[in-house]
Amino acid sequence: MNEAAKEDGFSTKSRDRGSMSRFSDKLKAAIQRTHGCLCVGLDVDLEKMPRALPKDGEGILRFCRSIIEATRDLAAAYKPNMAFFESLGAQGFEVMELLRQSVPHDALFVMDAKRGDIGNTSQAYARAYFHLLKSDAITLSPYMGKDSIEPFLDYPGTCSFVLCLTSNPSSADFQLQELKGGEKLYERVAKEAVGWGQGKKGEVGLVVGATQSQYLKDLRKWVPDTPFLVPGVGTQGGDLEGVLKEGRSKDGYGILVNVSRQVLYASQENDFADAAREQAKKLVDGMKPYFS
Amino acid sequence: MNEAAKEDGFSTKSRDRGSMSRFSDKLKAAIQRTHGCLCVGLDVDLEKMPRALPKDGEGILRFCRSIIEATRDLAAAYKPNMAFFESLGAQGFEVMELLRQSVPHDALFVMDAKRGDIGNTSQAYARAYFHLLKSDAITLSPYMGKDSIEPFLDYPGTCSFVLCLTSNPSSADFQLQELKGGEKLYERVAKEAVGWGQGKKGEVGLVVGATQSQYLKDLRKWVPDTPFLVPGVGTQGGDLEGVLKEGRSKDGYGILVNVSRQVLYASQENDFADAAREQAKKLVDGMKPYFS
Repeated sequence: MNEAAKEDGFSTKSRDRGSMSRFSDKLKAAIQRTHGCLCVGLDVDLEKMPRALPKDGEGILRFCRSIIEATRDLAAAYKPNMAFFESLGAQGFEVMELLRQSVPHDALFVMDAKRGDIGNTSQAYARAYFHLLKSDAITLSPYMGKDSIEPFLDYPGTCSFVLCLTSNPSSADFQLQELKGGEKLYERVAKEAVGWGQGKKGEVGLVVGATQSQYLKDLRKWVPDTPFLVPGVGTQGGDLEGVLKEGRSKDGYGILVNVSRQVLYASQENDFADAAREQAKKLVDGMKPYFS
Repeated sequence: MNEAAKEDGFSTKSRDRGSMSRFSDKLKAAIQRTHGCLCVGLDVDLEKMPRALPKDGEGILRFCRSIIEATRDLAAAYKPNMAFFESLGAQGFEVMELLRQSVPHDALFVMDAKRGDIGNTSQAYARAYFHLLKSDAITLSPYMGKDSIEPFLDYPGTCSFVLCLTSNPSSADFQLQELKGGEKLYERVAKEAVGWGQGKKGEVGLVVGATQSQYLKDLRKWVPDTPFLVPGVGTQGGDLEGVLKEGRSKDGYGILVNVSRQVLYASQENDFADAAREQAKKLVDGMKPYFS
């Protein structure tokens, strides 16, 4: 990463997640500002990036900044996935820190990390993503139970989105297994995880894949107020209308619908930012009726 | 990280995990070399580090190198936990890359990362830890099912240790839940995950906490040949003898017992490396009867 990339003036102000508000309030404000609940997933795959950009950390940063610039009035949130940055080694972390500074103050920064470890280790992850990177939210894996989530709940103004029912084909391997007594595992996870958030500084949210919209109605019955992060609309085949009809929280907000590839890779040519904007606009137009 | 730390001559040769062998063979060789199955967990907590070392990336690197140097004839494996490095940001990754180069060729490098995401994202994680860092093994979370583990199994000579029954108190939240039909979730995870490894280039292993030694006997009945990574001996209270009696694989090897704090923080004074060696030796002495 050269100095020019660090100092190109896009935004060098240090970021603050505005920890005076609850995450849910910030989410509501972002939805009201954009008339949609679009979360643009920054899953940066070097092979799919616009041809004109260098296939390195600097290219990734320029790409993400162009996408953010082109969608800033449309996106309620941006969600980078750490995997793509980690696969660049130390430089990837540097790019992530610069990327964080490029996200507008009024958009939420959701870190897709799917972490989860024992207590003191989860504390270190929480420090990395909530303290150092000032993320508004993070995705976490529930397999190790309450201890592994709790350290994240000490950060006011944040949301810990716990994996509940994911959008990938093998989500059924365990998440849809029926427990003795009739509950499915994802149901137990939803109810337990939301309980962990009671009385904490940070909120608990749930990740529910859009490809699972038949389960959204039940989930909303069990946890009516919990923020949902819903990936899988677009390339993965999830249905936007079904998700918005069943997935909003009781107050009519409380949802982020993540779309990655459909927006990011709308074009590999020099018009990629315009093409991304067009796709984002189409998505937000489809969301508007549910938020007005 | 200054240049002195990079070039201090400890070891600058690039690392290769010796991908001609299966992980299980390398594990057996490491156990035969050390007469024990000790995995030293490099969970570097700045607050517990020796007082004389600087509390930064350079201090961490010096600390880890001293511990490795002092235990190299005793440790079959080293297991850094990514969380503690990530909490330093980009510098943490740089330290991790240098640390990788400091691990002797005949010791296994186990990356404790507990990753797990959908397919193309897991590919990026696999690239980060198996291609870039040349880890021999990694820990992974099973919650998202087979898709999330498969990309790791394309790397010959590696082992993907899937979380099965962990050593933290809240492991019971989900792992010990009984499924319809009578299996517990960890049992289903064990059997499924081991199946995913059939016919793949990389092997599947399981993480089973030492605090769960009453379950080890059953697990060994179901998956007699699978490598186990067993954390939780020492500070967390697990019983070494019980673990070794019940936890070895059918051929008498197939196990790594991880100890972190008891070795790393045996002393905070200048004798910390000697004190760490003493603790490691005590542990290996307790292991010897099972591997001779």
